[in-house]
Amino acid sequence: MRYVSILGSTGSIGTQALTVISKNPATLSISALAAYHNDQMLEEQIEYFKPAIAVLVDKQAADRLVRRYRGSTLILTGEEGLLAAATEKSTHIVLTALVGFAGLKPTIAAIENGKDIAFANKETLVAAGELVMKLAKRYNVRILPVDSEHSAIFQCLQGENTEKIRRIILTASGGPFRGFTAAQLVSVNVADCLHHPNWSMGRKITIDSSTLANKGLEVIEARWLFGVDYDQIEVTIHPQSIIHSMVEFIDGSVLAQLGQPDMRVPIQYALTYPERLVTDFPKLDFTSIGALTFESPDINTFSALNLAYLAGRSGGTLPCVYNAANEVAVYAFLNGKISYLDIPRVIKDTMSQHQSVMNPDITAIISCDSWARQSACQMIEHMAKAIKQC
Amino acid sequence: MRYVSILGSTGSIGTQALTVISKNPATLSISALAAYHNDQMLEEQIEYFKPAIAVLVDKQAADRLVRRYRGSTLILTGEEGLLAAATEKSTHIVLTALVGFAGLKPTIAAIENGKDIAFANKETLVAAGELVMKLAKRYNVRILPVDSEHSAIFQCLQGENTEKIRRIILTASGGPFRGFTAAQLVSVNVADCLHHPNWSMGRKITIDSSTLANKGLEVIEARWLFGVDYDQIEVTIHPQSIIHSMVEFIDGSVLAQLGQPDMRVPIQYALTYPERLVTDFPKLDFTSIGALTFESPDINTFSALNLAYLAGRSGGTLPCVYNAANEVAVYAFLNGKISYLDIPRVIKDTMSQHQSVMNPDITAIISCDSWARQSACQMIEHMAKAIKQC
Repeated sequence: MRYVSILGSTGSIGTQALTVISKNPATLSISALAAYHNDQMLEEQIEYFKPAIAVLVDKQAADRLVRRYRGSTLILTGEEGLLAAATEKSTHIVLTALVGFAGLKPTIAAIENGKDIAFANKETLVAAGELVMKLAKRYNVRILPVDSEHSAIFQCLQGENTEKIRRIILTASGGPFRGFTAAQLVSVNVADCLHHPNWSMGRKITIDSSTLANKGLEVIEARWLFGVDYDQIEVTIHPQSIIHSMVEFIDGSVLAQLGQPDMRVPIQYALTYPERLVTDFPKLDFTSIGALTFESPDINTFSALNLAYLAGRSGGTLPCVYNAANEVAVYAFLNGKISYLDIPRVIKDTMSQHQSVMNPDITAIISCDSWARQSACQMIEHMAKAIKQC
Repeated sequence: MRYVSILGSTGSIGTQALTVISKNPATLSISALAAYHNDQMLEEQIEYFKPAIAVLVDKQAADRLVRRYRGSTLILTGEEGLLAAATEKSTHIVLTALVGFAGLKPTIAAIENGKDIAFANKETLVAAGELVMKLAKRYNVRILPVDSEHSAIFQCLQGENTEKIRRIILTASGGPFRGFTAAQLVSVNVADCLHHPNWSMGRKITIDSSTLANKGLEVIEARWLFGVDYDQIEVTIHPQSIIHSMVEFIDGSVLAQLGQPDMRVPIQYALTYPERLVTDFPKLDFTSIGALTFESPDINTFSALNLAYLAGRSGGTLPCVYNAANEVAVYAFLNGKISYLDIPRVIKDTMSQHQSVMNPDITAIISCDSWARQSACQMIEHMAKAIKQC
């Protein structure tokens, strides 16, 4: 039996992971669940999976649950609760499905306690990839990617030597605005963004997918997960999202992983690795999928992708700044404070104001993250004022 | 240094293998070369690669070469020569690139002498797959597929458990007559057949590719190479020949191997396995390859594919009959004796006249092969007479 802690159990990845676990009761079991503030959904999950620990980061939500809950699961709250869930004694593998930078500390705690990581919190790897990978090596834990693209690459690399990689080809659907000009992007609103053509995902990642910032984060993530140079990572738009990513080796042979756009497959693979277990999810029918096509990303219009390469190549704390500024800008956009094209603007301007620190430790990363959020917020306030004055 | 014997060195696979070997002189070396009767080309190959043994199966061709050759390579002839090349002492791996059933005996001799096999002689695996795979296991030698499709599957299975295969998806270009009706096939001639849309290959395999008999042979080959049932092997037409084949696992994840249609890649992979070596062959450019499409094969019009499944599922000596009848019919067609649609007719009628022997040994297989060739020849004589009488 493999015991799983899920950080972010009420989100898109978390709930799909619970579906996977409920379908494989002989192999997978839940030891801890953690969510931000959805006490009702978490309570249902506790009833079904009976974890040792359950956490609501939000204190008020935790209080509500504690008042009505009568079972044997220990209910905790706050960052301490999150760390307790990440390091729960019986846990073998921690699924880090928190959104954003909040995943950093619990991820590090889990690694330091010898837990394998099913990584679905890309922001942590972007902000602190070097640190996390070094720790994983030191504590001899596995870092198992959950993102469909990185799971694809990871699957293609089984039985292969990573030194023989010529390039990684990250596929991107291109999002709902593929083919749009900058002029067309001026007026897009939140509702337009949230209609992703292929994947059903959370709100933050869906906006990131539309700006290609998500692909930018994945480029940096790939650099750390697979130890390749940025020059070896290519992004190709593949609107059908059937090929989840590819690896070209030095002999010219390319391996690809394909499947329906269904996150349960990479989630299960990460949780059961190196085993593959039977699923009853919809299968690929090649005669009905039509054509698989590929095109270059429009990096001038969708500049967030290029900014990610720039941040990644510069290294140090700049990827952390990229991630923080993007996160702040996306929520400001979701809250109607800034326009769609302000998102890459905020990222770019925050990056340009940053004094990068090389080889940052965890303290430097956290302080850089705070600085970047503050700078981005100030920038957004200026933008919001300017809009009001118009 | 890995020493290679090439059986069939003047053919399409043989010459491409020599290109690969000449580009990797620090890793690969030639110990023996064997060809049927092209003494001039073999002589050039001897000059360049200086093998210990060189063979011309045809006695007259061998005599011509012996008369003028003054080097240190030992020139041999006949089946004994072929067997000597297959078992040459310093050889680590034998590339069996002979066309047709002629590859059977030398392949078995190589295995019994502990040589790894780079398998490019599919007819041997079709006629005697069970026997060959058992021998390979007993003598602990590797069977490394060279066919682009089987190399693709083999690459997808690295680091994977073959028991977790749900299905193998063999891709087929569909050949020059994809989309043709039976009425349109009545009048096709040899020249029409020899224009393969994607691959440059030998004459026999090009005809086989156009009738889908080649894919039928590959289905049977896949059954033995990967130990799967016929129900687990699907054929999908993929006209662009970029995806060379795929494997779907029980969790729904599909791995595929892609590349330019260039046999040098799978040849090199088989010869250097498990290493991958750098090549300077043309690379895949995803933004210029256009669309990858898939369709079901037209098994009514191209009945040779279905006949292969029938032969394979029946087992025993029937696959050997399928192969022999096809081989005879293809050469009869190439020599203008029968029409294009007579090829599947000859296969079907020869199969229907056969009394299959289960678990055949090498003697039974050879005798079945002779019987099938004789029957097919008689059938063809009748057909030719009938045509003359018209």
